[in-house]
Amino acid sequence: MGFVANTSINLGLAILAAILCAYIAPAAAGSGIPEVKAYLNGIDAHSILAPSTLFVKIFGSIFGVAAGFVVGKEGPMVHTGACIANLLGQGGSKKYHLTWRWLRYFKNDRDRRDLITCGAAAGVAGAFRAPVGGVLFALEEAASWWRSALLWRTFFTTAVVAVVLRGFIEFCRSGRCGLFGQGGLIMFDVNSAKNSYSSADLLAVIFLGVIGGIFGSFYNYLVDKVLRTYSIINERGPIFKVLLVAAVSLLTSCCSYGLPWLSHCIPCPSYLEADRCPTVGRSGNYKNFQCPAGHYNDLASLFLNTNDDAIRNLFSSGTSKEFHLSTLLVFFVAIYCLGIITYGIAVPSGLFIPVILAGASYGRLVGNLLGALSDLDTGLFALLGAASFLGGTMRMTVSLCVILLELTNNLLMLPLVMLVLLISKTVADSFNQGVYDQIVKLKGLPYLEAHAEPYMKNLVASDVVSGPLITFSGVEKVGNIMHALHLTRHNGFPVIDEPPLTPAPELCGLVLRSHLLVLLKGKKFTKQKTMAGSDIMRRFKAHDFAKAGSGKGVKLEDLDIKEEEMEMFVDLHPITNTSPYTVVETMSLAKAAVLFRQLALRHLCVVPKTPGRPPIVGILTRHDFMPEHVLGLYPHVVNRHK
Amino acid sequence: MGFVANTSINLGLAILAAILCAYIAPAAAGSGIPEVKAYLNGIDAHSILAPSTLFVKIFGSIFGVAAGFVVGKEGPMVHTGACIANLLGQGGSKKYHLTWRWLRYFKNDRDRRDLITCGAAAGVAGAFRAPVGGVLFALEEAASWWRSALLWRTFFTTAVVAVVLRGFIEFCRSGRCGLFGQGGLIMFDVNSAKNSYSSADLLAVIFLGVIGGIFGSFYNYLVDKVLRTYSIINERGPIFKVLLVAAVSLLTSCCSYGLPWLSHCIPCPSYLEADRCPTVGRSGNYKNFQCPAGHYNDLASLFLNTNDDAIRNLFSSGTSKEFHLSTLLVFFVAIYCLGIITYGIAVPSGLFIPVILAGASYGRLVGNLLGALSDLDTGLFALLGAASFLGGTMRMTVSLCVILLELTNNLLMLPLVMLVLLISKTVADSFNQGVYDQIVKLKGLPYLEAHAEPYMKNLVASDVVSGPLITFSGVEKVGNIMHALHLTRHNGFPVIDEPPLTPAPELCGLVLRSHLLVLLKGKKFTKQKTMAGSDIMRRFKAHDFAKAGSGKGVKLEDLDIKEEEMEMFVDLHPITNTSPYTVVETMSLAKAAVLFRQLALRHLCVVPKTPGRPPIVGILTRHDFMPEHVLGLYPHVVNRHK
Repeated sequence: MGFVANTSINLGLAILAAILCAYIAPAAAGSGIPEVKAYLNGIDAHSILAPSTLFVKIFGSIFGVAAGFVVGKEGPMVHTGACIANLLGQGGSKKYHLTWRWLRYFKNDRDRRDLITCGAAAGVAGAFRAPVGGVLFALEEAASWWRSALLWRTFFTTAVVAVVLRGFIEFCRSGRCGLFGQGGLIMFDVNSAKNSYSSADLLAVIFLGVIGGIFGSFYNYLVDKVLRTYSIINERGPIFKVLLVAAVSLLTSCCSYGLPWLSHCIPCPSYLEADRCPTVGRSGNYKNFQCPAGHYNDLASLFLNTNDDAIRNLFSSGTSKEFHLSTLLVFFVAIYCLGIITYGIAVPSGLFIPVILAGASYGRLVGNLLGALSDLDTGLFALLGAASFLGGTMRMTVSLCVILLELTNNLLMLPLVMLVLLISKTVADSFNQGVYDQIVKLKGLPYLEAHAEPYMKNLVASDVVSGPLITFSGVEKVGNIMHALHLTRHNGFPVIDEPPLTPAPELCGLVLRSHLLVLLKGKKFTKQKTMAGSDIMRRFKAHDFAKAGSGKGVKLEDLDIKEEEMEMFVDLHPITNTSPYTVVETMSLAKAAVLFRQLALRHLCVVPKTPGRPPIVGILTRHDFMPEHVLGLYPHVVNRHK
Repeated sequence: MGFVANTSINLGLAILAAILCAYIAPAAAGSGIPEVKAYLNGIDAHSILAPSTLFVKIFGSIFGVAAGFVVGKEGPMVHTGACIANLLGQGGSKKYHLTWRWLRYFKNDRDRRDLITCGAAAGVAGAFRAPVGGVLFALEEAASWWRSALLWRTFFTTAVVAVVLRGFIEFCRSGRCGLFGQGGLIMFDVNSAKNSYSSADLLAVIFLGVIGGIFGSFYNYLVDKVLRTYSIINERGPIFKVLLVAAVSLLTSCCSYGLPWLSHCIPCPSYLEADRCPTVGRSGNYKNFQCPAGHYNDLASLFLNTNDDAIRNLFSSGTSKEFHLSTLLVFFVAIYCLGIITYGIAVPSGLFIPVILAGASYGRLVGNLLGALSDLDTGLFALLGAASFLGGTMRMTVSLCVILLELTNNLLMLPLVMLVLLISKTVADSFNQGVYDQIVKLKGLPYLEAHAEPYMKNLVASDVVSGPLITFSGVEKVGNIMHALHLTRHNGFPVIDEPPLTPAPELCGLVLRSHLLVLLKGKKFTKQKTMAGSDIMRRFKAHDFAKAGSGKGVKLEDLDIKEEEMEMFVDLHPITNTSPYTVVETMSLAKAAVLFRQLALRHLCVVPKTPGRPPIVGILTRHDFMPEHVLGLYPHVVNRHK
């Protein structure tokens, strides 16, 4: 009976989450951190941060976590934070009638990017109640470009989060808000544990880190395989997505309700009061489950609990006898596998909690195995195990360290946590990439790495310039522009001044597609090929060319150019960026890549080395630097380097 | 008698420190953080990180702190860390016979810069026993360029520092190492204090932050004025430096020994045991001084103590009655003034401790004044006061926050500390710059800001190109090169290929002075103007051109070129960087500045826009972007912008 009730409620919630996710906003599935990371790298895909994604992310995540999946709420909260920031950054949503006038100041790429970084930081700060960890997460994992002003802006954001969070916790202390008020600002406090450790324990810790790194990279490997399999199923339609979610939900319910029956009942430790062991409610340690009075089921204490409480149980100190070795092993294996198969189904699912759960049970297992050999508490072993798994999957260092510090409030463990993180990261890095980078790659997003690939040193900029180059004249015929806009999907076009305006053809600059569309809509055309710049300047304000909200600018279909207007001319000088960054065609591709990435460019003009040729050779965009593109053109360049 | 003994010992130590500093390494005076910051910004002044500076910094700092000056050891430790890293980075010191072969891998600019960043981080980590704070300090304050690899490298460095530090503390627990073992990993533990605070306390905290910000920026203002005054005295010779130190030492001794007489004796609180109040030894609370048994002198507890113990006393909780209001006021004023007049004398002197001392006494004063109005402990008020002063003078956010967290081990205060730091930084920023930036500017170091100045938008690159341009031909006469090297101090020269090698003159690339010197020393000259590149390639190895230790490469005086060799030719192609970054002469100066700064360049070639002119217009270097240079050429450009 209990099993049926439990399973059906879980299934219902899971299907609800899946329907939201599959039918309204498919972009809301998964963690969301890879998408935010890609956005901050300059990949402007509309659906990533759309209001519908925000809505589904919030409610899908609530239903998903409530359905008992082995998923976290942390990744979705980061995505939620970024979505809210994006909503503010585009001046609210006109579609849903949420607009503010003052938000127009964010209508440019850089400020919008900064705002979304702040949103991601606020998400982490709220999820882990870790304000400093949030800043560092944004710095280390999310942001691709960083500047000192951004540092204190994210810091300000998370300070506000911390103050608001503390206010809510104060308000909820009396239990008015369900589970929220519990735990205070520190979620998994292990400050009370005994911190003494000897030099011999360092060896145990190093061992823990190495194995944790191997498990972590293997986790990444399996997640990658599972995601590839799921993508085949998910492509067949939304209904298959929902069915997959239902299948995983059933499996999860079976595991969490079925496995505890394997475990034996353990008598409560005598030093605990009756109301602390056994417990029956929705949270707490020492679950009674099917056991007689005065006994508890240790596996149920982990499975039939909120994920937060399970972590708290694993981190609890001075309770080395609470869980049997076999229990920890079963729990570890189950969570490790469930975590892997759950990520990728159509519900918002964070990776932090599954990884922490698996890592903590692994760490506690090792701690129990070592037993008397080590001075370290088993609860602290669980913490170090969680650190090793996090380091092994996510490959962050400082931010994970501070997040763990803020989660557990144990400053004296800091040297050990740092050590474990570094070791597991280093071990795992020798096998594969971090899990978020892997997902970005799997999704086919053109992510621009911070460093140039070594083989790029053997190529020059002009080697990878692709596609037919379309250039405009300084004063161009409207028909030509319309033709080019229809024909290509380029976002930037070089403008060339030609005689009689200049003695010889020379590169005037670069115009953007979005600016061209605004200009054409204004219809300031002239019959003759003359410079009508000042006229155009009067017609438009700078604000007209400000970046519109995603998917909301002037579209090519909106333009209504008449036949006779097609033969007229328009002066492009007022909207031309006359200082585009350029490289000479013989510039090493590696150095061009560094320039492109460091300055966060979208277009890089390649100019000829020798005079007497057309003043521009081509334009390099993000796609031209992708390894697939370069290696597609020059498959042997990697070997040449060796 | 006590006064005379105290004063004379202090004076002796002070003069020792001053002699070291004035005669051996004048660069070791002061905090050292501005110098490290300038070095990491690309300002390669030899003496900043020389081995002699290292030696004086270590011992001068020990003597200076021991002499009872109001100086910290934290800044000097950062400088020390950077110096040690530099020593390793140049492959040890040949002069002092400290070399290792494997260190040759650091013989390039970037790895050396990274290593020095790690050294600075290690310094902070060691000084405050704050490993994560060290990483963030290096990131926020020290480093000008950052990349993700650097993040985990500094993290690794500070992790090692933390493990080693913990090992030493463990070893010294029995008191074998004097004061070192005390305090454990957390220097000023306030974890035991009651953390409850109400919303009304937020107002008090905001008030504290605003006033702290004003005091902090006023501190910077006064330090600037005092430094300008001292530089007049110090310029007159080393003996004047020593005299100045002696005068400040006498004043400090008078204050610290004289002022406590003004204070009244207070009976010891009854709840303390006899061995805790009064105390006589070198550390501890409740100093007996001149008082009868069972009484203590509160001002002496602050003045006649190590700086660390004074801070611990101010931070101590549950002792709101320990210090009189008047005592705190006197101490605050004295430390504030002494801190200002001490910085700039010829001893290594950190700014952290004076600022924390002044801030803590200010915070405790405010806490005592508010008294019953606030729930917050006076010890926590002292912590917040210290945070407000640090934020007001140094203008860091995340790193100060984490350093304070690691110093005090009180996670629950984090929201308040963040708030105070942000408020005081914002308030102080409206008055003047951070203290380190101010000192960098005062020393006349050409520090490159991360952002371009607004007026640069009104200028183009060719506007600020200065000096006569000296170019070399692809195969150049040795005499011409020698002449150019003698005549100018340029570090980079453009190389131009001319007919008959190419159809028209074109920019081949850039050669560096240091590479030219190595090439000339090799004497691979030819009688005719021919390309002898492959010959030269055989003669040299890549290692020959590796960056030598500071001040150790081939010098112009070392070259011994004979008269007939002057008329011979040398092929510059093998050592020419054929992919220099270039900008067109009409490029906006602001965008050129961003390029220059983001890519960490030393030379930026400016090329002509129109064909038919010489292929290079000029070279932009760091000095050409300095506001003094630009505004010297175009004084009205700032107004034009308005």
